[in-house]
Amino acid sequence: MTYREDIEGIDASILMHPRVWEASGHVENFTDPMVDCKQCKSRFRVDVLGESINEKKQKKILETVLANIKSDNILLEKYQSILEKAENPFTTLLESLDFSKLLLDEINCPQCGNKNTFTQARQFNLMFKTFVGPLEDSSAVVYLRPETAQGIYVNFLNVQGSSRQKLPFGIAQIGKAFRNEINTKNFLFRTREFEQMEMQFFVKPGEDKKWYDYWKNERLQWFYSLGMTNGKLRYHDHPYNKLAHYAKEATDIEYEFPFGWGEIEGIHNRTNYDLTKHEQFSGKSMKYFDEESKEKFIPFIIETSAGASRSFMAFFIDAYYEEEVKGEMRSVLRFNPRLAPIKAAVFPLVNKDGMPEIALQIEKDLRKNLKVFYDDKGAVGRRYRRQDEAGTPFCITVDTQTLSDQTVTIRERDSMEQVRVSNDKILPYLLEKLSKV
Amino acid sequence: MTYREDIEGIDASILMHPRVWEASGHVENFTDPMVDCKQCKSRFRVDVLGESINEKKQKKILETVLANIKSDNILLEKYQSILEKAENPFTTLLESLDFSKLLLDEINCPQCGNKNTFTQARQFNLMFKTFVGPLEDSSAVVYLRPETAQGIYVNFLNVQGSSRQKLPFGIAQIGKAFRNEINTKNFLFRTREFEQMEMQFFVKPGEDKKWYDYWKNERLQWFYSLGMTNGKLRYHDHPYNKLAHYAKEATDIEYEFPFGWGEIEGIHNRTNYDLTKHEQFSGKSMKYFDEESKEKFIPFIIETSAGASRSFMAFFIDAYYEEEVKGEMRSVLRFNPRLAPIKAAVFPLVNKDGMPEIALQIEKDLRKNLKVFYDDKGAVGRRYRRQDEAGTPFCITVDTQTLSDQTVTIRERDSMEQVRVSNDKILPYLLEKLSKV
Repeated sequence: MTYREDIEGIDASILMHPRVWEASGHVENFTDPMVDCKQCKSRFRVDVLGESINEKKQKKILETVLANIKSDNILLEKYQSILEKAENPFTTLLESLDFSKLLLDEINCPQCGNKNTFTQARQFNLMFKTFVGPLEDSSAVVYLRPETAQGIYVNFLNVQGSSRQKLPFGIAQIGKAFRNEINTKNFLFRTREFEQMEMQFFVKPGEDKKWYDYWKNERLQWFYSLGMTNGKLRYHDHPYNKLAHYAKEATDIEYEFPFGWGEIEGIHNRTNYDLTKHEQFSGKSMKYFDEESKEKFIPFIIETSAGASRSFMAFFIDAYYEEEVKGEMRSVLRFNPRLAPIKAAVFPLVNKDGMPEIALQIEKDLRKNLKVFYDDKGAVGRRYRRQDEAGTPFCITVDTQTLSDQTVTIRERDSMEQVRVSNDKILPYLLEKLSKV
Repeated sequence: MTYREDIEGIDASILMHPRVWEASGHVENFTDPMVDCKQCKSRFRVDVLGESINEKKQKKILETVLANIKSDNILLEKYQSILEKAENPFTTLLESLDFSKLLLDEINCPQCGNKNTFTQARQFNLMFKTFVGPLEDSSAVVYLRPETAQGIYVNFLNVQGSSRQKLPFGIAQIGKAFRNEINTKNFLFRTREFEQMEMQFFVKPGEDKKWYDYWKNERLQWFYSLGMTNGKLRYHDHPYNKLAHYAKEATDIEYEFPFGWGEIEGIHNRTNYDLTKHEQFSGKSMKYFDEESKEKFIPFIIETSAGASRSFMAFFIDAYYEEEVKGEMRSVLRFNPRLAPIKAAVFPLVNKDGMPEIALQIEKDLRKNLKVFYDDKGAVGRRYRRQDEAGTPFCITVDTQTLSDQTVTIRERDSMEQVRVSNDKILPYLLEKLSKV
């Protein structure tokens, strides 16, 4: 670990002024289209409704819609354009202003089976809202932050001024974010409450491309430096015609989960979009004064936005192995030792003959510097397996030889190799091994 | 720093199942009484309304009420009992079921001045609520946690099982909590979003008194060990007739803020109240199996609940000094070095003659282990003052002598004493000083 001189930390609040989310565009745009069934009152996210219809049925519905619009040249052109270009034309048509109602009228409600029963699609905002004070009216609405980024943007000049940083520099934050997802899925992958770890890097306009490329590479290497298996990560660059409204360039770092490739981090060139918006909505300058050129300008932002919960799941899955050892299966979490929750376990070989006393003393000494675990239950082989399952990289055993020569065995988790180390050299031995990775 | 072998960590979620807050009593009891003015529609917390009335006026209102109830012996007895026993009789009467309306009818609205205008007092729940999913009805209500404790209680057996801890042991958590306070006040002291640091210690029934006393002492010493000024902390033991419904014994650790004594931590013997309630409401056993006695029982809980935001403010205020140094005032934050955000600053005496190169190298080397700050702007005296204001305990200056003998001056913040240290001994020098405190 080393501290970067060009990155500061912050802990912004979860409940911010609601205008922050107007400025960021979340009040207007952070929505999913929804429909209700008028008969049974069930509610559906439009894209989920689309996915619930099989291909044959989809084809039939598209034919009916085509027949209905064939005399309208403008609609027909739009329809064909979507059919040619969209990745998922059925859902795209279902979500479009022009075709949504036409398709919905042909779909049976998955709940009650009725047709011609859906309301117009309308936008449902994914921000959780609550009320400050006892009055539950619109003037009291606040939102739970759907991302940590905006808390960094609105505090940009506070942090810059108090830390006396100059461009380029970054502000980083780990914290909870909340999205009122209609459908959660894949364990920690899509949840309503999740942890983000974001770093927003402020640069001079014109240097954004250089820093975007720098962070794109740096962040991939970060995951590999913590032990991700080669080939399990890839970039998914966003095509220019599909970029978010704030982005000039964007890529996802994806991990190959058992359920498919999934984004664990996004790197975005957000330009000066966000700070410009916050300046407009707050009426406060977001301009940085450059001492060299004596110019004032709004910096560009390169964002590295990682899901801490998702990354945790990726590291967890990546570390999990089952393998045969001497005719028995062992489960092992091959965590990079920096990520292992327990750094070392200490065992007395047998729970007598003075061994527990020595082992407990070793555990107590190590505990000043490392998170360690003491175990005296069952055969040593079984105790090794328990630590393998927890991903503990080193197991220290006090045995008969310890009583005569004051050495212990230290067994490494992955190779299962054992070395003898003098009792008074255990901590330096472990610290050296832990610093190498 | 040393890891305790008997305490585990957890990060529970902010949005939990709403039944958790029914079990804990928060849905029913975590309320403040409120009234509305029927004329001007202003809304008041009853105790704040009470405080807004001066003593003379209070006395007059109490006389009127007394005249009104003098023929009702039961009411009269209750009235006199409150007047004798309550710390603040006027507010207590105002909040009581029997007298609230009688008093309210005599009070003028502080907003519009009208009398006989208040609604009945009713309870306003301090939990922020929001809705999961698009339907904003009662079945979709969830609450933002008003305390982190309950997240520990409901996960008690998960943590105990996976960590293989035995009683007595604790589970600790730092995290955000939210309370929809009508009136925020005193900077960070009462805010709607705040950070708690709690540790819940699970013990055998019968050992609760011993552990309550242990933690009561331990927690006070913790604040002192981090540099709190002697005499600025005190216990406020809760009298037995004023204990919360879950508590058998309770104390606050109070700090003497400039605005008066205020609670920064509470230590409570919560008995088996919470786990028993969660067992009832969830239908899942909360019993611990004791291997020695082969008995199953619900543990008692000793809670140490500190406000991280409040404690931060207390440490901050406690560290602030203004003092005269050589005829000039300096502001200094005398943070215990473990709390200082920047551990050392590095200065070149002048920004030439090779000094910046050496200073930058020292800064780069230290940065691997410590948060450091580089400053080459202005006179050295001025740079010292900046670090004094930030609470940086050590300043390292590269000067002319460094060029000839490879030593630097290290200046200590509080004593302002300077020593010369060899360039290659700076890190060990600092680490030793930092470990002593």
